[in-house]
Amino acid sequence: MRVYNFSAGPAMMPIEVLETAQAELTDWRGSGMSVMEVSHRGKDFIACAASAEQGIRRLLGVPDDYRVLFLQGGASGQFAAIPMNLTKPGDTAAYLNTGQWSTKAIKSAKTQLLNVDVLADEAETKYTAIPAAGSYVVPSDAAYLHYTPNETINGVEFDYVPETGDVPLVADFSSTIMSRPIDVSQYGLIYAGAQKNLGPAGLAVVIVREDLIGNARSTTPDIWDYTAMANADSMLNTPPTFAVYLLGLVLDWIDASGGLTAMAARNQAKASSLYAAIDSSEFYANPVAVNARSWMNVPFTLADSSLDAEFLAQAQQRGLTNLAGHRAVGGMRASIYNAMPQAGVDALIDFMTDFANQRG
Amino acid sequence: MRVYNFSAGPAMMPIEVLETAQAELTDWRGSGMSVMEVSHRGKDFIACAASAEQGIRRLLGVPDDYRVLFLQGGASGQFAAIPMNLTKPGDTAAYLNTGQWSTKAIKSAKTQLLNVDVLADEAETKYTAIPAAGSYVVPSDAAYLHYTPNETINGVEFDYVPETGDVPLVADFSSTIMSRPIDVSQYGLIYAGAQKNLGPAGLAVVIVREDLIGNARSTTPDIWDYTAMANADSMLNTPPTFAVYLLGLVLDWIDASGGLTAMAARNQAKASSLYAAIDSSEFYANPVAVNARSWMNVPFTLADSSLDAEFLAQAQQRGLTNLAGHRAVGGMRASIYNAMPQAGVDALIDFMTDFANQRG
Repeated sequence: MRVYNFSAGPAMMPIEVLETAQAELTDWRGSGMSVMEVSHRGKDFIACAASAEQGIRRLLGVPDDYRVLFLQGGASGQFAAIPMNLTKPGDTAAYLNTGQWSTKAIKSAKTQLLNVDVLADEAETKYTAIPAAGSYVVPSDAAYLHYTPNETINGVEFDYVPETGDVPLVADFSSTIMSRPIDVSQYGLIYAGAQKNLGPAGLAVVIVREDLIGNARSTTPDIWDYTAMANADSMLNTPPTFAVYLLGLVLDWIDASGGLTAMAARNQAKASSLYAAIDSSEFYANPVAVNARSWMNVPFTLADSSLDAEFLAQAQQRGLTNLAGHRAVGGMRASIYNAMPQAGVDALIDFMTDFANQRG
Repeated sequence: MRVYNFSAGPAMMPIEVLETAQAELTDWRGSGMSVMEVSHRGKDFIACAASAEQGIRRLLGVPDDYRVLFLQGGASGQFAAIPMNLTKPGDTAAYLNTGQWSTKAIKSAKTQLLNVDVLADEAETKYTAIPAAGSYVVPSDAAYLHYTPNETINGVEFDYVPETGDVPLVADFSSTIMSRPIDVSQYGLIYAGAQKNLGPAGLAVVIVREDLIGNARSTTPDIWDYTAMANADSMLNTPPTFAVYLLGLVLDWIDASGGLTAMAARNQAKASSLYAAIDSSEFYANPVAVNARSWMNVPFTLADSSLDAEFLAQAQQRGLTNLAGHRAVGGMRASIYNAMPQAGVDALIDFMTDFANQRG
């Protein structure tokens, strides 16, 4: 029996994707081999990777002057790889700090001999809000402005795209990529770990405007040198082939589900119903500023935190798993990425209502 | 129908492993979730990763003062990460060059502000031999000596472990790890990409002696900082969970198959039978010095290279796939890692005999 899995990542994947992978796990498309066993240099896998890249380009409308790279090391690896590729030692890069992932990106950037200019930091709101547009100024000499459109831990999301003038905008889209349409041309670089909306852990996708690459520091590891990887179609070394294959299946599933416009409607409906249930209850609360509430990660607290363990145990019995909040904030968190159906959110809301009636 | 897949990597995996993964792909051990969907911070996955580490420790007899790390970026990533962790800028590190993988490791090391001292280079033998023990002197001030115990492209393997005195020995075991017992205490650091003998692509295993870590350069990316990763049980960031899980299944399979002593006997028998077939034929040839012939990768040429395409096409028809040699050397190559049974090698030898009788 499958459960509704509210894990923040690795996260629920579409059952259709898992069933396809399962059906062909020992014999991929008549090859007599698993997709895990085929050479990444063979024409079948090259076509598979190219198809995944085309899926990203098609769904996101990636302009032709952007490269799409499949890398290893997750988004955390990119925290270091971005300065290596986009800056020289001593350059300035600007960051917005809206939570734990921004904080990690900033910390990593500081190890790369960079002048890190944090333009705004939501520490005083305990990372329950985002800086207002116009409340910070992007220095014109910054190599880029980095921000985190969605923070998974506090469930905080930007409701606007920062204006940066000529300064390239760099965004960690790990927890929100493919959840709705975006305008890629507003960004210099988009990156995302796969394990929330794209597939399994172990793959990072980087979408970068061509004019920003070609000047990596000489000490950049080959496998993170965007130009070297772009020139090698992301196969300078052996790629994580199974993850790339699953990415392709996930993108096909998004296509078959109506594309990103349909995903956006679905995701907005899921989030709205869950926030409405929380807001209409005296028993549950969400502390995030209304304009900054995430569609993807919905943290909430119980009026009596001594009931947390019982809440989680009863939820588990109803097949609602991984609802514990991040250890840094406690309480509950429901992560409701693309693969979570409205039925899962409805089941959660029903349970929350029952629990509040019973114990509230 | 499954084929015998002689790919150099990603490579054949044990069918028992694939079938287990297939059976539980949508419901891992009764969780109602795929192992790809569970949180890496949950107790089930932590136990899974710990079990994989224990499997490596048990099979290889890893001493207690070595750390076992699961990293991303493959062995190619470690080409840069090793200097970052084990040297300071300006240090000397010694390398032996026995083929394309050594050459890549050397090239990467040179980008890391290192004085790279290549003690021996088999270019003049076209990488068909290994430097004799005693033919090179390891400088006592070297941070380490790096070598590649097995080179996949030319099928060349060391038949001895280099003596280095007090200088730590660093070895890229990507294509030979778990193929036979080794004495880990002879090494300062062992690393391996998973996609030959350990599982799917996307995971690198590093086994490093504790006294060598703790002095990573300040610019080392967190996810490659051996100390930071050791302290976080390789979960500083989201690990490639499915690859770690499959590694565990592969290690269980090795255990169930009799462990590394049985693997060694099996692998030696497979290689011996194939080399004997080549050597006893006028139609096939292997150029590698007899003492340096690889158990894992057996390249061979046809007396008439104009028959190569026909050889490959007929082999494919018999269910013998991925026999084309690396593009750098041409001819044929049979990679016969742990998962290739003797029956697969026998089928190859039968076909080679038939083909030589027919066209020789």
